[in-house]
Amino acid sequence: MTILDGRAISNKIKEEIAQEVIRIKELGEKVPHLAAVLVGNDGASLTYVGSKVRSCKKIGFESTLIHLPEETSEEELLQKVEQLNADDTIDGYIVQLPLPKHIDEEKVLMAVHPDKDVDGFHPTNFGKMALDMETFISATPFGIMELLKRYEVETEGKHAVVIGRSHIVGRPISILMSQKGKAANCTVTLTHSRTKDIKALTLQADIVVSALGVPHFLKADMVKEGAVVIDVGITRVPDETRERGYYITGDVDFENVSKKASFITPVPGGVGPMTIAMLLKNTLLARKRHRSKAD
Amino acid sequence: MTILDGRAISNKIKEEIAQEVIRIKELGEKVPHLAAVLVGNDGASLTYVGSKVRSCKKIGFESTLIHLPEETSEEELLQKVEQLNADDTIDGYIVQLPLPKHIDEEKVLMAVHPDKDVDGFHPTNFGKMALDMETFISATPFGIMELLKRYEVETEGKHAVVIGRSHIVGRPISILMSQKGKAANCTVTLTHSRTKDIKALTLQADIVVSALGVPHFLKADMVKEGAVVIDVGITRVPDETRERGYYITGDVDFENVSKKASFITPVPGGVGPMTIAMLLKNTLLARKRHRSKAD
Repeated sequence: MTILDGRAISNKIKEEIAQEVIRIKELGEKVPHLAAVLVGNDGASLTYVGSKVRSCKKIGFESTLIHLPEETSEEELLQKVEQLNADDTIDGYIVQLPLPKHIDEEKVLMAVHPDKDVDGFHPTNFGKMALDMETFISATPFGIMELLKRYEVETEGKHAVVIGRSHIVGRPISILMSQKGKAANCTVTLTHSRTKDIKALTLQADIVVSALGVPHFLKADMVKEGAVVIDVGITRVPDETRERGYYITGDVDFENVSKKASFITPVPGGVGPMTIAMLLKNTLLARKRHRSKAD
Repeated sequence: MTILDGRAISNKIKEEIAQEVIRIKELGEKVPHLAAVLVGNDGASLTYVGSKVRSCKKIGFESTLIHLPEETSEEELLQKVEQLNADDTIDGYIVQLPLPKHIDEEKVLMAVHPDKDVDGFHPTNFGKMALDMETFISATPFGIMELLKRYEVETEGKHAVVIGRSHIVGRPISILMSQKGKAANCTVTLTHSRTKDIKALTLQADIVVSALGVPHFLKADMVKEGAVVIDVGITRVPDETRERGYYITGDVDFENVSKKASFITPVPGGVGPMTIAMLLKNTLLARKRHRSKAD
């Protein structure tokens, strides 16, 4: 059994990007610049955004954190988005989700210019991904694909069962894994809340991707011997014995499933760390496209 | 066993649209206007485009056929596309595929303004479809969904196996059928050329959608008793005994599969006729959106 060590791989990717930033500087060119917009003070969001900004600094990117108050109106946020679209010094930016309830998320995501949408959430980028065109692939599915590639997990002709049809994980990973190309060419079954017998399907799977957000949903009796198991669930379980008041757990009963799996991602330390690395990769990509457009 | 009669349903839909056109005229408003661009003289393309234009006339739409010579350059075609984007009298248009080899299809489809892209091929529209937003759904998958709805075929929680991952049928129908909503909520398995044991999967399927283009690929021993069978394959088989020199056949061994199926589409007369009806529906939709924008 091999642990798919997302922390190690993400560090490697960050190191590769940092090397590229050094070359960019040597050429006297502008380094990639990522901006992040955060509205309000949601704890998890503060942590995520903070981590993204710190990662930028570490690898030599410029970064800008735009922290707006909880009571920011939709119109004010849309104005900020327009400013970021027009700001030529910024290569890519993200609007951290979730947004406060009084703001229409779809409207805001639609306003982000696709060329700066390093989260890959804009329909134009999502459509390009689904049609196998060059685009920004959103960080979580992109990270899963990269993990499979780096560990040279065999995927061609394998049956992958994806649990969960969210727009940010289940749907895109089900599309990517069934496309032609490396770490892909799988037969993919997408399951969700209305699926009648998930166990009957996961038991057939060579690869299981669980993106449900239900702790310990995937038990050992649901996977076959030798399966590849990708755990995308990240749930904060309240725990008063811990200093921060919670612990992080995944969808997979790791202790028991890992005994049957050929490859498995841990939580934490699996898919999670990959997402920041892929966001940085997208930002580097945005910088390159931005530059070649300016030429 | 019930035949999913695409010809009858498409006539019904056209009749509904024709009624709406009458109302539009009574209000003194502009009727929907569809333009079709055809480059060259491919036999099948001429037939398809001719049929689309005739259908427009029958239901009271305006239509314009722009027939360009085979030797039209990519630049000339892109100029035509820009003209159509700018032409306020045209609500929607299609560029008939395939284009001659010297023209980059992707470049042309990317140039069609999403608001006029009634074929739903532009990445922005494809992405909106995949993200369950309002858009133009391309005619073939849209037609399949409509057939399932009109016959009230139960789909929720059913296992649908789609054969073929093309961008115009397999991929979009696999997405649509797995979304929330009517005629959807299926567990969907997408199979393709690299799938190892298609039969093992189709035998589990409550619904099989075959979009492969291989005559009589799906045999009776590949489907379970009571399955719903949707045949999207349209292959012209050369046949000198026929006046036009060929006959049309589907992916499904209809004679034998129909004995096991609960619902089945014939070829011809199943999914085929639905596509034109849905193109007209998209054009009506384009007219409505166009008008509400002008208000």
